[in-house]
Amino acid sequence: MAGNQLLSGAPRLALRPLTVESFAPYGDVVTSKGREGRSINAGTSTRVEMPEPDVLDDGGRPSLSVFRASAACSPIEIRELERHRLGSQTFLPLGGTPFVVVVALGEAAPDAATLAAFRAAGDCGVTFRRGVWHHSLLALADGDFAVIERRGTETDCEVAQLRPLLVD
Amino acid sequence: MAGNQLLSGAPRLALRPLTVESFAPYGDVVTSKGREGRSINAGTSTRVEMPEPDVLDDGGRPSLSVFRASAACSPIEIRELERHRLGSQTFLPLGGTPFVVVVALGEAAPDAATLAAFRAAGDCGVTFRRGVWHHSLLALADGDFAVIERRGTETDCEVAQLRPLLVD
Repeated sequence: MAGNQLLSGAPRLALRPLTVESFAPYGDVVTSKGREGRSINAGTSTRVEMPEPDVLDDGGRPSLSVFRASAACSPIEIRELERHRLGSQTFLPLGGTPFVVVVALGEAAPDAATLAAFRAAGDCGVTFRRGVWHHSLLALADGDFAVIERRGTETDCEVAQLRPLLVD
Repeated sequence: MAGNQLLSGAPRLALRPLTVESFAPYGDVVTSKGREGRSINAGTSTRVEMPEPDVLDDGGRPSLSVFRASAACSPIEIRELERHRLGSQTFLPLGGTPFVVVVALGEAAPDAATLAAFRAAGDCGVTFRRGVWHHSLLALADGDFAVIERRGTETDCEVAQLRPLLVD
């Protein structure tokens, strides 16, 4: 793509495997892997509790939607991140679609030292903790993702521009 | 399995394909297929709104968990159904795991005339509407499912016994 060629000299951010531990500063991996649970349904399932979706603050209500994502081209250009200061946001791949998660911490703006990119294999979801900077959904194949987030009366999305970088 | 052999003379319930229309009496299929949405994220995704999870009534709060399911043996024995009268329950396969949904309507008990079994391909989820009788999770392969439901102070699960039947 022409856009990627223009960015050929841009800094690159290497993809890391997504694990509960590596993602912990930014939020939660929605998976049973490595988590304790309890047997339910006559032993046919193990139930693993996840943190409650953080969606009720300031009059918020839970929202469920489906994002039908188109595959992103690699390397992926990252030019901006967004954050939601009033609630968490959970992305759950339906159908096993792998995806990329780009996140950062930072109060006034994304802190470059905390920028990280993770490759999610498509058998787990992620929850971005309230206030964590993140890129919008980056699917590695066409597919549906269920999204759980806060719905409120006012817009809760801040966008920060970044010095462009490439993730691969 | 010995259990299935004992039930070899039991009535059988044929699996139907899960579609938005066929499942409508019982709840919602969580999918973008056949649904209208709006373009978001610079055109890389289409956002499709689903009904709000029905989890806040009577002091309820949203709950997110992961069920690590073991594959059910076919034909599947159905001996009981459950329902939650205070909220909806949403099952979302992570990793593309296909599953079977057995549902019924009925006020005091499941109405046999409304019993239905659906095969979900693993690229969509389902929401059981509040009060709809349903079997516990029946995965067709080992896999994780994200579950969104109501959490409250009291138990909200009724179980009804059925004349045993086989689903295949």
